[in-house]
Amino acid sequence: MRLTSKPRGHAAANRSALHLSRLNLSGNPDAIEKLRSGDRRALARAISMVENHAPGSIELLKRIFPHTGRAFTIGITGAPGSGKSTLVDQLAKIYRKQNRTVGIIAIDPTSPYSGGAILGDRIRMQDHFSDPGIYIRSMATRGWLGGLARATADVALLLDAYGQDVVMIETVGVGQDEVEIVRLADLTIVILVPGMGDDVQTMKAGIMEIADIFVINKSDHEGADRVERQIRALQSLAHARDPSGASIIRTIANRGEGVEKLAESAFAYRTYLQDGGLIQQHRVRNWELRLLAMLRDSLLEQARATISGGDLRSFAEQIAERQRDPYSVIEEVSRRLRQA
Amino acid sequence: MRLTSKPRGHAAANRSALHLSRLNLSGNPDAIEKLRSGDRRALARAISMVENHAPGSIELLKRIFPHTGRAFTIGITGAPGSGKSTLVDQLAKIYRKQNRTVGIIAIDPTSPYSGGAILGDRIRMQDHFSDPGIYIRSMATRGWLGGLARATADVALLLDAYGQDVVMIETVGVGQDEVEIVRLADLTIVILVPGMGDDVQTMKAGIMEIADIFVINKSDHEGADRVERQIRALQSLAHARDPSGASIIRTIANRGEGVEKLAESAFAYRTYLQDGGLIQQHRVRNWELRLLAMLRDSLLEQARATISGGDLRSFAEQIAERQRDPYSVIEEVSRRLRQA
Repeated sequence: MRLTSKPRGHAAANRSALHLSRLNLSGNPDAIEKLRSGDRRALARAISMVENHAPGSIELLKRIFPHTGRAFTIGITGAPGSGKSTLVDQLAKIYRKQNRTVGIIAIDPTSPYSGGAILGDRIRMQDHFSDPGIYIRSMATRGWLGGLARATADVALLLDAYGQDVVMIETVGVGQDEVEIVRLADLTIVILVPGMGDDVQTMKAGIMEIADIFVINKSDHEGADRVERQIRALQSLAHARDPSGASIIRTIANRGEGVEKLAESAFAYRTYLQDGGLIQQHRVRNWELRLLAMLRDSLLEQARATISGGDLRSFAEQIAERQRDPYSVIEEVSRRLRQA
Repeated sequence: MRLTSKPRGHAAANRSALHLSRLNLSGNPDAIEKLRSGDRRALARAISMVENHAPGSIELLKRIFPHTGRAFTIGITGAPGSGKSTLVDQLAKIYRKQNRTVGIIAIDPTSPYSGGAILGDRIRMQDHFSDPGIYIRSMATRGWLGGLARATADVALLLDAYGQDVVMIETVGVGQDEVEIVRLADLTIVILVPGMGDDVQTMKAGIMEIADIFVINKSDHEGADRVERQIRALQSLAHARDPSGASIIRTIANRGEGVEKLAESAFAYRTYLQDGGLIQQHRVRNWELRLLAMLRDSLLEQARATISGGDLRSFAEQIAERQRDPYSVIEEVSRRLRQA
């Protein structure tokens, strides 16, 4: 059973953003209090606002930020077909039984055309059951030049402020954006399955290196031992941390096997991080990376505001005609921006 | 048979960059003339230099830029296992028979740990046969915050200046970086195969929309009709261009079936673009997008140069401790950069 919510259509999102800016959520302490006290609608509105980078969203994020940092964030990544969603749903159920509240951000890398079709196959748990302790949000990948990593990190903060004990971020883990995303979690779980061609080898550069826990799912399939050997070989290269002796966990997600152990290991890892004071070190490093990414995005936004569409087009024309080269155009524009 | 060259190890690349900057390739008209006249070693050196963003590489690119724009660039993307490399190799052979010179840039999304293993399986045509009319370069994905799209675009320019008639850029097409990459080609080919789970649906957002030609490879497998219906359904939504009546081509790459037709269609598409004057329009639009991406990268580089590592760390610490929020830090740093 797949638990998810449908991504908001553009029209709906825009209406919603407009609505919010009229309500002035960002400047409204009540709305922020509502979000913090577990008001689901206030959370949904805040997420739409942040996703759409609506006016006031930065103000909102600034104000909720001091109330974040409590949630345990888990990044979970694996190739399509690795059973990622099933595992995430099962982890969610286990944590719910332990009375932990759960947020799930499912990054959906599909085309806007087909996105609806995939999600249509899935049962939307929160629509059907409305367990107030679980909140699931699907996010579709956005346009050119990223923006997804930013939006995901910001939505994770909202779920944190909302009070979710565990926030899981689920991605296919193949793109650079997605490496950025899971990398920002406290714990990164990489799911591998036996017999999917190149298995370990098809993972995106940078993913294998940041895994804290490897899951071998579908471990009843032939080749599980081979996958484990591959991981051990990588670990011997990477000196991977192995605090709990459980950094490789075998599961059969559709039968629920091994999932309890995974759920425990995740929290054992957290305890390990906290006891050694490592969690703060880890978060400081993540914030350094995230600040650079935020700075890049912010500078690009400023640049876009400074260079008119007409200028950009005329530069592009000159370049396409080989009257100028793009490298000196960039130098000129950078100079101009500094003088602006 | 897989035709590829091995990506350079870091140590080798660094040595090479050092070597190059001593040789002062960028300021040496002879070296640029050598590259343009088909000197393979000059090309290899220039590529290493550009890949590593070595000192002088921008100078070099500025100087070769006026000699580019002749090559027909083809972006080819498809999921792992879709037969992408086989198709690219077969297209290369066909174009070589037509006496067209060919450059191939194969983007390898694997981990640095395992990259060697995959490439080890492949026969490196140029090492074995050294057909001077073909040049193949594998590029591994690089670190944090991209850089791959930049390097790929720059290497494509070098192959263009070197005189290759056709430059094919082959990627797995799942990450944002990779969308950026294939999007910059004159022609984009998306490869789908029947029976790979969600087929059309698992493609990255943005890829389906920019395809000029769809290939249904392994079209003897069950489900080829279904894939074609899915594509037609998307096309009716997207009003896809269909100049040659051949925007969906069925191939069985490992038997060479349909590949001649694909090779022809690619050039038919080019003729269509050229005759209608569309190729220039297309390139202007691509340069607009690429200028924005270059600007983003350049701004980030400047930002990194302006903020000391110590500042960055101290901001990250304050944020991790919730003494400050990251949004106001970014505002402060942006202000500072403008005053710098």
